[in-house]
Order: sequence, then structure tokens, then C-alpha cells
Amino acid sequence: MEIITPAEATTEACHITHGYIGDKSQYLARLKRIEGQARGIHRMVDEETYCIDILTQISALTKALEGVALGLLDDHLKHCVVDAAKLGGEQAEIKIKEASDAIARLVRS
Amino acid sequence: MEIITPAEATTEACHITHGYIGDKSQYLARLKRIEGQARGIHRMVDEETYCIDILTQISALTKALEGVALGLLDDHLKHCVVDAAKLGGEQAEIKIKEASDAIARLVRS
Amino acid sequence: MEIITPAEATTEACHITHGYIGDKSQYLARLKRIEGQARGIHRMVDEETYCIDILTQISALTKALEGVALGLLDDHLKHCVVDAAKLGGEQAEIKIKEASDAIARLVRS
Amino acid sequence: MEIITPAEATTEACHITHGYIGDKSQYLARLKRIEGQARGIHRMVDEETYCIDILTQISALTKALEGVALGLLDDHLKHCVVDAAKLGGEQAEIKIKEASDAIARLVRS
Repeated sequence: MEIITPAEATTEACHITHGYIGDKSQYLARLKRIEGQARGIHRMVDEETYCIDILTQISALTKALEGVALGLLDDHLKHCVVDAAKLGGEQAEIKIKEASDAIARLVRS
Repeated sequence: MEIITPAEATTEACHITHGYIGDKSQYLARLKRIEGQARGIHRMVDEETYCIDILTQISALTKALEGVALGLLDDHLKHCVVDAAKLGGEQAEIKIKEASDAIARLVRS
Repeated sequence: MEIITPAEATTEACHITHGYIGDKSQYLARLKRIEGQARGIHRMVDEETYCIDILTQISALTKALEGVALGLLDDHLKHCVVDAAKLGGEQAEIKIKEASDAIARLVRS
Repeated sequence: MEIITPAEATTEACHITHGYIGDKSQYLARLKRIEGQARGIHRMVDEETYCIDILTQISALTKALEGVALGLLDDHLKHCVVDAAKLGGEQAEIKIKEASDAIARLVRS
């Protein structure tokens, strides 16, 4: 029999559900579009499209990525962070630290 | 006798502690400096300093504000959100929604 | 015989050179990598990678896009905007307005 | 008699007009408001206002600063950069480099 400590249990639960799974197909569709946008920008440079039009597409792609990131973060807070908070202790602290660091990277990028 | 529902109890706890209180004097010192930076930029425009130098000071002020916001948010997650998550239910959902909305405003500003 | 007005002449010159052409292969390589990063993020969601790791990759992709945008903008200022400024008049105003609008979109995205 | 080289002449012209002077009183009024917003955030922390409300005010202040920065940059491009571009040579290159660096700092802050 395997003994699971609370910390492992949370990581495990988090690993299994990952918060965003309910919306997985929606995220996959958005990321497919984002990949297409990146390909489109590559083509614009290759075809020497006017710079300003390329910059407009880069801003649109950045906004789309930002939307995905904010969605994933919200799902992460709702599931993994809430679950870890309930267990409390070190596991909760680790999850909050991780989330805060990810938020700082998003705000600064 | 006053009856306190769990939701009110959390809001109350959150209102009392507010997470960041431990660091209050440090936040006040940073915000005093930020106010001074804003006053300095006003003076630079008044004295018709070279635009690029004013822009450099605006970027520095924006970064300082960003630092305060990320600190407050981290404290908020560590205290109010963790406390609400433990109580669970609607109160936890409200706190996560509020935090996600604040993060989105920071990322987009 | 075709008559070319100064405004058309600039647009034409801008259309031919497009500023960034000297670095075209370098931009194409960076955009190829960006497309690969977008594909990688799609795969991470599909394989249900831990959210925080996906967010880290999104921040890296956003930074890479930002680098391309700032490079294109610098090239645009150096070539199209400088050329239009020399001609002066309405054409210069249009180019500056376009550049300022593109900068505002980048700063806000 | 003082001999003024073209480079010095531009810097001088730029120093005198500074682009934004036409709107100086409007910039001063916006910066006065920004200073007041900074003071308000200091007071909110001092009075232990709810974190989320403080974050909302920080986002508003960041947006106000961004608006001033984009305005100053637009004025700078319209005047100093266009004037330097007309003179051409090293002076134009220096001004474009300076503007590009300022834009990069704004995008990244």
C-alpha cells in the first residue's frame, strides 16, 4: 500500500484535474488560432507587408495570448490554489508563491 | 445577539487583517517615494526638461507602482484568498473572482 | 506617363524598402521559433501540463513577440518615418500618426 | 561669434521647443491629478482600505501615466525627431535610437 502525504495528495489532485480541463477543447481551439496568427505574421514578413500592419497583427496576437494566460490563471486559482489553501501549511504557501511569481511574469511581459 | 454568517465572518477577518498590515510602514514609505516621483515629473514638464528624460522617469514610476501592486496582490492571496478558500463555498468563489479581475486589470494596464 | 505625387512616392519607397528588409532572414527565423513556441503551448495544454509551466511559456512567447515588434518599429522609424519627415508636409504627419498609434497599441497590449 | 554645427542646432531647437510646449498646461494639469492619485493610494494603505480597491486605483494611475507618456512621445516624434530627420546624418540616428529606447522601456514597464 502506498502512503500519500497531504502535500503529495494535493500535487496529485492538481496534476489530475489541472483546473482548466473542463475547458480544454476551448483552450486548444484558441491556441490553434494563435499558432495560425504566428504563421500569418511570418508570412507577412516574408511577403514584405507594410511594417505598421505587421505591428497591428503582433498586438492582436499578444492580446490573444494574454487572454489565454488570464483564463489559465483564473482556473488555476479556482482549483489548485483553493485546494492547497484548504490543506494549508507549506503546500498552500508553495502554491501561492508559485501563483504570485507567475502573475509577476505576466504583468512584466 | 448578532448572528454572523460565514461569509460575513470572512469579510470581517479580511477587513481586520488586510493581509499587508505587517508591511504597512514599508508600503507607506514606497508610496511616499512614488508621490515624490510624480511631483518630480510635474516639475520636469514645468521646467521643460528634455522629453526623453521625462519618459525615463515615467517608466521608472510605472515600475515602482507595479512593484507595489504585485506586493499587495501577493499579500492578498496569502491572507484573504487563503482564508476564504478554507471556508469554501460562495465566499471563496467571490474572492477568487475579485482577485482574477484585479490581476487582469494589472496585466492590461 | 504616370505622374507620381510626393505622397505616393514616399509610400512607394516605403513599400519597396520596408526598412526591415536588411534583417528579413533574421526576423523570419525569430518568427519561425515563435510559431514553434505557440505549437509547444498547444501541446502542453493537450498533454495537461501543470498550469504554472504553461504560463511560464506564455510569458516567454509574449517577450519574444515584444522583441520582434520593437525591432520592426525601430526599423520603421529609421527608414519610413525618417524618409517621410524629409519630405515633410501631410505625408510626414500621416507617418508619425501611424507610428504613434502602433506604439500605443504595443504599450497597451 | 559662436559657430553652431548642425547637430548642436537641432539639439538647441529641440531644447527650446521641446515639442510638447503647446500643451504644457494640459500636461501639468494631468500630472497634478496623477500626484493626487498617488497621494490617495498612500492614504488608502494608511487607512487600511480593502486591497482589491487599492489595486484598482493603482491600475487607474498606471493607465493615466501611460496616457501622459504616449502623449509626450507623440509630441517628441512630431517635433524633435522630424526636425532631426530633416537634418539627417548622425543627429537623426541619435534621435531615432533615443526614441526607440524610450519606446522599449515603455513597452516593458
